[in-house]
Amino acid sequence: MEIIRPRLPKGMRDILPQQMVLREQVLGIVERTFAEFGFEPLITPAVELSEVLLGKYGGESEKLIFFVQHPGGKEELALRYDLSVPLSRVVAQYPELPKPFRRYQIAPVWRAERPQKGRYREFYQCDADIVGTTSMLADAEIIALVYTILSRLGFQQFVTLINNRKLLTGMGQYSGVPDAQLPSLYRAIDKYERVGLEGVRKELRDEGLAAATVERLCALIWPADGGPASLEDLRSELGELPLAREGIDELQELLGYLPALGVDPRCYRFDLAMVRGLDYYTGPIYETVVEEPRIGSITGGGRFDDLVGRFSKQSFPATGTTIGIERILDILEERPTFSSGETIVEVLVTVFSPESMEASLRLLSELRGAGLRCELYYDADPLGDQIRYALKKGIPTLVILGPDELAKGEVAVRDLRAKSQLTVQRDAVVQHLRGLLDRDDP
Amino acid sequence: MEIIRPRLPKGMRDILPQQMVLREQVLGIVERTFAEFGFEPLITPAVELSEVLLGKYGGESEKLIFFVQHPGGKEELALRYDLSVPLSRVVAQYPELPKPFRRYQIAPVWRAERPQKGRYREFYQCDADIVGTTSMLADAEIIALVYTILSRLGFQQFVTLINNRKLLTGMGQYSGVPDAQLPSLYRAIDKYERVGLEGVRKELRDEGLAAATVERLCALIWPADGGPASLEDLRSELGELPLAREGIDELQELLGYLPALGVDPRCYRFDLAMVRGLDYYTGPIYETVVEEPRIGSITGGGRFDDLVGRFSKQSFPATGTTIGIERILDILEERPTFSSGETIVEVLVTVFSPESMEASLRLLSELRGAGLRCELYYDADPLGDQIRYALKKGIPTLVILGPDELAKGEVAVRDLRAKSQLTVQRDAVVQHLRGLLDRDDP
Repeated sequence: MEIIRPRLPKGMRDILPQQMVLREQVLGIVERTFAEFGFEPLITPAVELSEVLLGKYGGESEKLIFFVQHPGGKEELALRYDLSVPLSRVVAQYPELPKPFRRYQIAPVWRAERPQKGRYREFYQCDADIVGTTSMLADAEIIALVYTILSRLGFQQFVTLINNRKLLTGMGQYSGVPDAQLPSLYRAIDKYERVGLEGVRKELRDEGLAAATVERLCALIWPADGGPASLEDLRSELGELPLAREGIDELQELLGYLPALGVDPRCYRFDLAMVRGLDYYTGPIYETVVEEPRIGSITGGGRFDDLVGRFSKQSFPATGTTIGIERILDILEERPTFSSGETIVEVLVTVFSPESMEASLRLLSELRGAGLRCELYYDADPLGDQIRYALKKGIPTLVILGPDELAKGEVAVRDLRAKSQLTVQRDAVVQHLRGLLDRDDP
Repeated sequence: MEIIRPRLPKGMRDILPQQMVLREQVLGIVERTFAEFGFEPLITPAVELSEVLLGKYGGESEKLIFFVQHPGGKEELALRYDLSVPLSRVVAQYPELPKPFRRYQIAPVWRAERPQKGRYREFYQCDADIVGTTSMLADAEIIALVYTILSRLGFQQFVTLINNRKLLTGMGQYSGVPDAQLPSLYRAIDKYERVGLEGVRKELRDEGLAAATVERLCALIWPADGGPASLEDLRSELGELPLAREGIDELQELLGYLPALGVDPRCYRFDLAMVRGLDYYTGPIYETVVEEPRIGSITGGGRFDDLVGRFSKQSFPATGTTIGIERILDILEERPTFSSGETIVEVLVTVFSPESMEASLRLLSELRGAGLRCELYYDADPLGDQIRYALKKGIPTLVILGPDELAKGEVAVRDLRAKSQLTVQRDAVVQHLRGLLDRDDP
């Protein structure tokens, strides 16, 4: 029979058990925090009707969608590209869901991007959204959620940048940017970090904006003293424009809630130059960057009040965030303080001889019953081989039940990290292992 | 802008938060048991190269595969059909993985089957496998794993039927069935439950087997007294055939380990008429059925020593099981004893007035910090509306911080299940809620 070379599609990857240890720890913290914030899990299928996805992300993005079919199938199908569009479909499809609808979803999405280091064609997104309220409390909770998750993951110098699309649009109106060119305006401002003020000016001019418009805009966003404009400055400059005023009001209300929600004031700030890439945002937007080391954004989100309306006449306001879980994992993998071993297995139960097999199996069964994660060594190989196996896999402890121990009602417990071994009474072995493994009683 | 009707592809489904409550509880028990048995998590991509999947499952199954492509993509891609073939690819692709390699994977698979009640085109499989050992201890551990999971899920009258493909093949040889017709033999025997002995006879004759062969087979599997043949009967009848003897030896060794592993003897038995559908099994096979109510099999698996060899010259023996998680969930959903409410949210923090907002937010933040799952009500609606919302969503408790409570340093806590309300000191509220919610201290 022909042997098929074992390999993966371009840009796809396997996540092997050793990498899963950190991943599960991190996702455990994220999910627990989502639940504490009252978000509930949702599963949508990987495969959606193409018409549900198309026309939502912008043309360049849609070139990256994977299509799906089966022989004889009549539907046009595609793999989901993000989790926000499926959420919007769900909200429109089940009008009976209680509002506000607070859901989280941690699931893969597929994009046929050019593969590069740390970027895959299948990757996990991790979204929390609140649908059905215009309250700025919802936006404030999203920012508090991001703060809590990142703090629990051990991040320190991070800051959530906060802005508002209504303010940006008002600013465009003030400077004379036609509505149709607003997306170009956002994109140009977005490049400030990379290309500097001169670069933004050039970009805006290349988009066909008048020189006066460009100057007015740049003077507003980056006043002469170099620092960014404050909300107060903007209110006195733009306060006559209803949309801009609404944006400023929203921002001030939102920022006002954060201290009581326990968000450290060093971890958020208003930033007029943060605009977010996607077209569908309508109000507050937020993005978290790590400042030391500089590694770009690790969360991003905002209000998207019109997206559900793409699927229903009855639309619902919505706000939420993506936690950039893949990038966060890349960062944490580099930090030895967070990583915690190579395996989830805690105890190797060794096998001494066919005669002691039954006693070993009973011990194994009892340890598992006590919640310890145990692997059984299958062969009566020399003990040295069994120890080498545990070391190779990174299993921290090992129990030995030979004829001597069996006769005396004892078990030998070896701590492979401390390189020590102790013989304990059979009925004390669970407690002793719990101590070595630093496990609480159940 | 055109409104797209929100709907799903044929045979696909959303799993809404209310259904997720039970699902997460059940999967939590399954994952914890996998870990206690030393299985480690693995993630493989949903999309595989078509050549990896094709030629493994049999022609009828392969008609159900979904294919994937993206504009300009050159690879032939497909959605995974099960988790065993991707596992075999992984083992061949990373020869450095320590053996035995014990992994579990809980993930969706896709099959374009005709949709019907309880059967979807995307559904979750839940597999645990051990690769790299021929030891019957591994097979015994798989059966103990199934027993432990089903017991923990509250199943009672279930039984794991155990058989061996070597014995079945030997039995075919004994009766004169050509090797090429063995799959038809398996399929015919598999129908015994549905079509009875006469039906099996007809099926075998239709496959072109000689009348004498059919009689010899049926007399062996279902002896005259109606009960199934015992292992001892079979050994005396087939013991001269090396393959049959090997199968009987394996079965006896495997069955011998189960008592010491704590498996209740009422929950497993040898069953010569249980054959499993897939072609790739090579040794012990197992399938669990619930006897009361009769609902067919809920786990299935066995040894597949040759599958890794489809991807590498260096092959590895392997054994494992699928836990039929979707069917198990269907059964448990009908059992009120297991279900546990409609939401994971434990506390609704109500909002009384703009003046008490800050105090409510601080309380919210503190409750979450104590690990309680809290939702904030966003509007200062009448308390009755806020209570109705909690009742509608099934949130069991509710805290109220109005001007009176605020002035006295107290919080009112309402237990919506007991329909009672108590005012407690501000610093006792966490403990009081924990008591109401039956939550341990952290």
